[in-house]
Amino acid sequence: MAEETNARVLASGPTIPENPAFVPGRVGIVGLGLMGGSFARALHQGGREVYAWNRTRQTLELAMIDTVDGELTDEAIPTCELVILCGYPAVSIEWLEKMADLISPGAIVIDTVGVKRVICERCFAIAEGRPWYFVGCHPMAGTQYSGYAHSRANMFHKAPMVMVPPPGLDDLTRLDLLDRVERLLSPVGFGQYTVTTAELHDEVIAFTSQLAHVVSNAYVKSPSAKVHKGFSAGSYRDLTRVARLNAPMWTELFLDDADNLSREIGILIDNLQQYKDAIDARDANALEALLREGDRRKREVEGR
Amino acid sequence: MAEETNARVLASGPTIPENPAFVPGRVGIVGLGLMGGSFARALHQGGREVYAWNRTRQTLELAMIDTVDGELTDEAIPTCELVILCGYPAVSIEWLEKMADLISPGAIVIDTVGVKRVICERCFAIAEGRPWYFVGCHPMAGTQYSGYAHSRANMFHKAPMVMVPPPGLDDLTRLDLLDRVERLLSPVGFGQYTVTTAELHDEVIAFTSQLAHVVSNAYVKSPSAKVHKGFSAGSYRDLTRVARLNAPMWTELFLDDADNLSREIGILIDNLQQYKDAIDARDANALEALLREGDRRKREVEGR
Repeated sequence: MAEETNARVLASGPTIPENPAFVPGRVGIVGLGLMGGSFARALHQGGREVYAWNRTRQTLELAMIDTVDGELTDEAIPTCELVILCGYPAVSIEWLEKMADLISPGAIVIDTVGVKRVICERCFAIAEGRPWYFVGCHPMAGTQYSGYAHSRANMFHKAPMVMVPPPGLDDLTRLDLLDRVERLLSPVGFGQYTVTTAELHDEVIAFTSQLAHVVSNAYVKSPSAKVHKGFSAGSYRDLTRVARLNAPMWTELFLDDADNLSREIGILIDNLQQYKDAIDARDANALEALLREGDRRKREVEGR
Repeated sequence: MAEETNARVLASGPTIPENPAFVPGRVGIVGLGLMGGSFARALHQGGREVYAWNRTRQTLELAMIDTVDGELTDEAIPTCELVILCGYPAVSIEWLEKMADLISPGAIVIDTVGVKRVICERCFAIAEGRPWYFVGCHPMAGTQYSGYAHSRANMFHKAPMVMVPPPGLDDLTRLDLLDRVERLLSPVGFGQYTVTTAELHDEVIAFTSQLAHVVSNAYVKSPSAKVHKGFSAGSYRDLTRVARLNAPMWTELFLDDADNLSREIGILIDNLQQYKDAIDARDANALEALLREGDRRKREVEGR
């Protein structure tokens, strides 16, 4: 089925040289962290052949015991139908730049990075004129823990997947390409695929994900955090769940989306200041109006 | 057992007139909202007799079908060993002021209000010189929904309960009194009892609960909230869970703890501004240091 889809996509794409090494359905994973490990486990359990590269060899060897079929060497890269870049933005771009000519004609490369403008701009440029496609991807799931040890096959089960297709494709080619990504990833079990632009993705993600991490991380810095035991319920636990985070990774993601995230932090600060002003003025009417408005907005976005 | 405990506590308390109407273990609940309803259900399931008062008679009649044994009339009040004030702060204080002389000698009155200074100051004063005790209580559980319809018997199962004993008791009397509250509430299934002062309670609760509600309610006010569908995962869901809230109730609670809450909002704004400044300056080192510090604090308070 993969071969058939492949042919259909390529029919309206560039003419490509034949590649006898190509193994339909085989997946190459670049980086065995929380994301890469979870993709590897899910795809392996779904019967796919999985080849992987990882900076730390020990993790690769661990994964090769029961999940990964082989190392993603220069010889293995051309055999993959799908390559998933699972490193930080800069590392993912660097790998693709270096390996671009080894990727098989007809293959698809996706990434899993939480920002899309920087990675799509560079990776679309790398793919340009080459006989394979890059599709920017952001699987909307994760945990506050990182690393292969925390990865699991059901990480993305029912989660939303956001896809950014390359520019300049006609409608049919684009739809076929996205359809093929969905089918290649079918063992992963995403609940929903959303197609968008890198610009819109980065705008919304600054709000839904990045701001949540900033707020949570800032929240626990109150001196009161030290004496909260016995005084906290679900709301505190929820607000501070993602306070624990991978600082170097989020630093890179935040700076790659600095304009949007800065704007969202500013909006939240301004809104918080309004509550503080109403409280300082002991203005019950103003405070209740602010709370009602937040309640109304939440109901609205929940579609109730 | 209740009679015996009762006698033990009262032994070191004031001399009391005999009250032939007193029914050991019987509970009076003032206000059948989310809190009152949940206490009523849990205590009823635990075999206690439950009498209740509610502003809206329809709710009381609904509760009397399967949970509440009778109306908490002027005749029923003197028969209760435990009275639980489950309304908003002002309503709870008002009820106690009006009914103070009907409460049985040897009884205990508690409340469930989320702030403790205002209610303890007033209710300790009302109890002063009367032959029963008031103990400030704050059960640390709830949901983003309010009203009897959302109440449930297991609402407080394993939740923390915070207690503020009256001032001026000797150690033995205080310990006996708190012990008796715990036993009277045993069917409710609290996981942990914490004893504190009203001042410390209000300081910590401004951070663990009130600030969480303010942040969540403010969070959804970004214009980006309207386009988040398909772009949000667990962190957004957690951050905005309590954005839906009972605006009049929280207005009263926030203003009763205005000094502490205002300070906590200010601290959070200042912290958020630091992230914004680092992002605006594209200062990766400063941003990573801020994120590491938040991660460290969270691990510290988690005791890891």
